[in-house]
Amino acid sequence: MSLIVQKYGGTSVGNPERIKNVARRVVAAQEQGHGVVVVVSAMSGVTDNLIRLARECSPNPEEREMDVLLATGEQTTIALTAMAINALGKKAISLTGAQAGIVTDGVHTKAKISDLTPKQLKQHLDDGYICIVAGFQGETKDKRITTLGRGGSDLTAIALAAAVKADLCQIFTDVDGVYTCDPRVVPTAKKLDEISFDEMLEMASSGSKVMQSRSVEFAKKFGVVFEVRSSFNDNPGTIVKEETKSMEAVVVRGVSIEKNQAKVTVRAVPDRPGVAARVFTAVAAANIVIDMIVQNVSHDGTTDISFTLNKDELPKVETGLGKVVKEIGARSLEIESGYGKLSIIGVGMRSHSGVAAKMFEALSKGGINIVMISTSEIKTAVIIDEAKLTDGANVVHEAFGLGK
Amino acid sequence: MSLIVQKYGGTSVGNPERIKNVARRVVAAQEQGHGVVVVVSAMSGVTDNLIRLARECSPNPEEREMDVLLATGEQTTIALTAMAINALGKKAISLTGAQAGIVTDGVHTKAKISDLTPKQLKQHLDDGYICIVAGFQGETKDKRITTLGRGGSDLTAIALAAAVKADLCQIFTDVDGVYTCDPRVVPTAKKLDEISFDEMLEMASSGSKVMQSRSVEFAKKFGVVFEVRSSFNDNPGTIVKEETKSMEAVVVRGVSIEKNQAKVTVRAVPDRPGVAARVFTAVAAANIVIDMIVQNVSHDGTTDISFTLNKDELPKVETGLGKVVKEIGARSLEIESGYGKLSIIGVGMRSHSGVAAKMFEALSKGGINIVMISTSEIKTAVIIDEAKLTDGANVVHEAFGLGK
Repeated sequence: MSLIVQKYGGTSVGNPERIKNVARRVVAAQEQGHGVVVVVSAMSGVTDNLIRLARECSPNPEEREMDVLLATGEQTTIALTAMAINALGKKAISLTGAQAGIVTDGVHTKAKISDLTPKQLKQHLDDGYICIVAGFQGETKDKRITTLGRGGSDLTAIALAAAVKADLCQIFTDVDGVYTCDPRVVPTAKKLDEISFDEMLEMASSGSKVMQSRSVEFAKKFGVVFEVRSSFNDNPGTIVKEETKSMEAVVVRGVSIEKNQAKVTVRAVPDRPGVAARVFTAVAAANIVIDMIVQNVSHDGTTDISFTLNKDELPKVETGLGKVVKEIGARSLEIESGYGKLSIIGVGMRSHSGVAAKMFEALSKGGINIVMISTSEIKTAVIIDEAKLTDGANVVHEAFGLGK
Repeated sequence: MSLIVQKYGGTSVGNPERIKNVARRVVAAQEQGHGVVVVVSAMSGVTDNLIRLARECSPNPEEREMDVLLATGEQTTIALTAMAINALGKKAISLTGAQAGIVTDGVHTKAKISDLTPKQLKQHLDDGYICIVAGFQGETKDKRITTLGRGGSDLTAIALAAAVKADLCQIFTDVDGVYTCDPRVVPTAKKLDEISFDEMLEMASSGSKVMQSRSVEFAKKFGVVFEVRSSFNDNPGTIVKEETKSMEAVVVRGVSIEKNQAKVTVRAVPDRPGVAARVFTAVAAANIVIDMIVQNVSHDGTTDISFTLNKDELPKVETGLGKVVKEIGARSLEIESGYGKLSIIGVGMRSHSGVAAKMFEALSKGGINIVMISTSEIKTAVIIDEAKLTDGANVVHEAFGLGK
């Protein structure tokens, strides 16, 4: 018998009707001859409501108690989902993260899975049960309840798929799969049939929020092939897997955009060894999450160091960097927001030249100015005016022939 | 250091403001030098909402899954309460029923506590923490989540008080204590300073719904003295404890009333050994919960057997008893509703005569007809017209001088 792990997100289990819909899908999978493990998130809205309650009880809730609180969201869904499947005449049983054998470290609200021994779950599968597991949660060795942080339910599904050696892992969500670009931005965007782990990782880190990077990293590490698909229709989704030879034939897999970017420049930094290190040590010490870093060749013994970041991070910049800018003798600290990031991603870039040039030409023809450039092996990213992001995405998408 | 167990019901923790109010009370208790264990219920309305969700997912939810679902209610409250206490600068830590060491049998939705080893809780107390325990829940030896049924949080508090050998157990609720009668019915009703376990048991089983009988029974069995008091003011409550000599001086401790009573009479039952047994075997087989049973002396070789029950039980009577009534050769089955039960309770009845007579006289003067009478060692109960229940309670309350 083949074994399948299905994960349903908060929107897919958002109310009793939708939970019953999930139950029908799960039963259909079992009737096709699969053993089925189902991972569910909290019903949409529930987690936000719990966070609101916590803030009303304490201005600064302890993370240990936050985990005890938030874990109730998924526990509610597993019970309801098991009931809905039972109501269809099938055997289903719910398991909390701890009951499913998910052991984590003790970093509350963003714990990492340290061990997964799904003994009880395997026994229930052998007994013919459909197992409904609470995503997003686990417990420490000393039995404290923990949660896995954002995207935690995807991680639960992929980790369980690895642990039970599932034949297939399906991530059900509210979109049909991974697209060449966000269809709300580029109307001609096309759903991808497949994508490599590395491309998916670059898409995620470039703002395509289908899945969090760490779930994809986990899947890549343990070789868990998974499918991203919709819980609201029967369309096939996107298979995410290890890169194959044929994938390299496609130069650019997709275009990813990210709004709300800001640029920080330290002007006229004396060009001496160690100054860049001092700048970014200060950045790290102030807990500022940054993205691209660009330093160009120096002239007149000084250079400019720039980096980009989400504009939400800006309040930390002045206090975190003001002092070090003076200490290293740089001229000034310039902060500008109103930018966006546009990236093209594809494993084919490795073996094809001229990809970046083609992108820049398309932007130029579209009258879009490039402020910064950063490249990796399978990605080229540019910072442009935020207002031009939609135009840019469309011209680049068109230039690489990604449309329908 | 003395140790105190406090229990707060659903109304007392009904919203964040009230949870913060509970936090202040708990901190005040600690500042008086007590070690404090707090047992909390689900926020009022939460359990009903979960039950509604369950019914929308399944017409007949499994009890195992119902327990997984309902246990989230108290888990939410423990986290919020711990946060609120921490926000006051004190050390608090939450524990689920399982973490608090509450082991139950496997009877889902109405499990019985089979073992209680609060090892982790004692350690936290030794470390100076205020421990916040989820009421109403436990787990089986094989780690299934269970709930204790109605009044389960009181039971958790009393069982924990016994297990940690607490010096005091306080049941905080939305009333000031146990009254001589329901003040909404008898305006002159007076709060009792103390009451014996047995009297409290009779009050509970006679409709005074301050606490469920089994929590009182548990307290009696393990000698746990407890106080019932309000979480909304600082008035002293009612101490419930083992009977003392001085308690016997009071003939009647209180008057208890219960609406919605019905009377079932099996007419002209042949007066042979075994017929009563056949009637009540059929009652038990049909899962009919009955209260008073009255059988009077026979005449003409037949007798009438009557019993009372809540009118909600009536639908089961005809199907459950129709057949046996014919089999034993009785004349008919008569069912009447519209009755109420009025009881007087007091350990002093044992040593005082004429108590029942005084009650009947008061009712008679009030023009109230008695339909049935039943007595126990410390209680005299009568069935009267439901419409006369308030009048009856007032005249009896007055006759025994229970008013303010």
